[in-house]
Amino acid sequence: MNAQTIQAAHDRIRSYIHRTPVLTNRTIDALAGAEIHFKCENFQKIGAFKARGGLNAVLQLSPDERRAGIVTHSSGNHAQAIAYAAKQVNVRAYIVMPSTAPQVKKDAVRDYGAEVIECEPILVAREQGVRDVIARTGAALVHPFDDDRVIAGQATAAKELIEDAGIDRAFDWILAPVGGGGLLSGTALSSHFFSPTTKVMAGEPEGAADAVLSFASGRVESAPYINTIADGLLTNLSDRTLAIIRQHVTAIKTVSDPEIIAAMRLVWERMKIIIEPSCAVPLAVVLKHRDQFVGQKVGIILTGGNVDLGKLPF
Amino acid sequence: MNAQTIQAAHDRIRSYIHRTPVLTNRTIDALAGAEIHFKCENFQKIGAFKARGGLNAVLQLSPDERRAGIVTHSSGNHAQAIAYAAKQVNVRAYIVMPSTAPQVKKDAVRDYGAEVIECEPILVAREQGVRDVIARTGAALVHPFDDDRVIAGQATAAKELIEDAGIDRAFDWILAPVGGGGLLSGTALSSHFFSPTTKVMAGEPEGAADAVLSFASGRVESAPYINTIADGLLTNLSDRTLAIIRQHVTAIKTVSDPEIIAAMRLVWERMKIIIEPSCAVPLAVVLKHRDQFVGQKVGIILTGGNVDLGKLPF
Repeated sequence: MNAQTIQAAHDRIRSYIHRTPVLTNRTIDALAGAEIHFKCENFQKIGAFKARGGLNAVLQLSPDERRAGIVTHSSGNHAQAIAYAAKQVNVRAYIVMPSTAPQVKKDAVRDYGAEVIECEPILVAREQGVRDVIARTGAALVHPFDDDRVIAGQATAAKELIEDAGIDRAFDWILAPVGGGGLLSGTALSSHFFSPTTKVMAGEPEGAADAVLSFASGRVESAPYINTIADGLLTNLSDRTLAIIRQHVTAIKTVSDPEIIAAMRLVWERMKIIIEPSCAVPLAVVLKHRDQFVGQKVGIILTGGNVDLGKLPF
Repeated sequence: MNAQTIQAAHDRIRSYIHRTPVLTNRTIDALAGAEIHFKCENFQKIGAFKARGGLNAVLQLSPDERRAGIVTHSSGNHAQAIAYAAKQVNVRAYIVMPSTAPQVKKDAVRDYGAEVIECEPILVAREQGVRDVIARTGAALVHPFDDDRVIAGQATAAKELIEDAGIDRAFDWILAPVGGGGLLSGTALSSHFFSPTTKVMAGEPEGAADAVLSFASGRVESAPYINTIADGLLTNLSDRTLAIIRQHVTAIKTVSDPEIIAAMRLVWERMKIIIEPSCAVPLAVVLKHRDQFVGQKVGIILTGGNVDLGKLPF
């Protein structure tokens, strides 16, 4: 993947997405001792950056693939992203979702005209569900992160952040959370191509600390245990995302759930915007490792704002 | 008060406030059947429009008044607005606050360098507290709404909304919530001067329904009972605000707390922004009286975003 790949992705999806705002906040800057620019993907279509990758994949389908439709499995934002993207180009979408997914999420996917296939809430059942759909329909799989088209799409968020935060001073750091590594890979690539002096750091929950292990060992590892409020970051990396991350990311740091919740609360109270627990992770890293960022220009990708208001941690 | 008064207020306060964004949302437009433009004063300095009125008053103090300082009583956004405004011009501020006000609000006022004077949580004690401060210091009172300088300041929110929402089609309606009537008076005056074909409607909670009675009778009335989540709208009108409202406002409509909470939730979930219950009232009116607004261009002033995350109604 090169700079042209990401530029082409941006040109391809531009008319289907919001160019989300980059916000700053004086109180948070004072707390961190840094100049933080927040890229607000919580205001993106479907409420999360995943619309970018989903669109970039769907818009590159061949005519044959468009006729057969697309399939994925997800209980979260990727499900909505694929359903939304498919609707834009009138392609049939099949979304395999765990039967335990909240009704509101299933309804949102159906509202975009996608077909929801329910399955047992375990990974093997989800993967079998996808195979069944493919056997029945010939639909093409769009993986949530192990896909260059998806990574190039997610990369456009950091590209916009870099473009919009001014050229008089480059970012010292850009931070993103890491789950499967699609956003982090794209962020690292955009930084590498479009702001080469900028270093990239990832934040990961202590209760889903697989990427930090994989980053050290060079092999895709699983987390020692899974227990975190940041439910968008539970997935392991893939070989593809791990390779990009090992090449272009400087560090991965973990934070605890109380640190995540405190950072989330800070954004809600001071910026008056709604963010998911998963995207409070990078700010929690910045506040925890204050000395590393003090006096510096820092970009943070706020990944999404899809929270269940009935289950808030406050 | 004329158009020049409001223009002068705007010029006076411009460098101290944010020109807050005007946001739209497709889902909410589809639900309402209307084109709604939300003026986001939840992103204003101190998290609410009241920074505008406070600044316009404080910036007009005479040199003698500046030396003596200013005083007000408030448990809410006006307290912070006056403390913030006073800090901008290095004037001493005395804020009489009920002893029952949340510690976080007292701390916020003190953080701006204002002196907090605690009193019993009843109106007569608050008014006595103000008189005591005036006797001791000679400070000038800045009333939260019964003051032309404050009304002209609040009017600048609607002025910006009118300017930013495009001149190719004027608003059919602009809606604001009504408590003491400072914002509503200013909104009605800005609409009258800067968008004369636009009608203004107010939303009021059923559980603090004094303005709707005063509007009908022409006398300042009290609410039959007080019981609402919209705790920024409990105050009666004054003779001054009632006169402006009777002259320039088309209607006041009431909504129930469940209707207010549903509208608040809709904004949180769909727009990903945090608004106070008080400022969900106008949207609740639009959704309740859908037929009246269908197909029309509607402006709504989202007044503030200062909520206690520990006490959410979801």
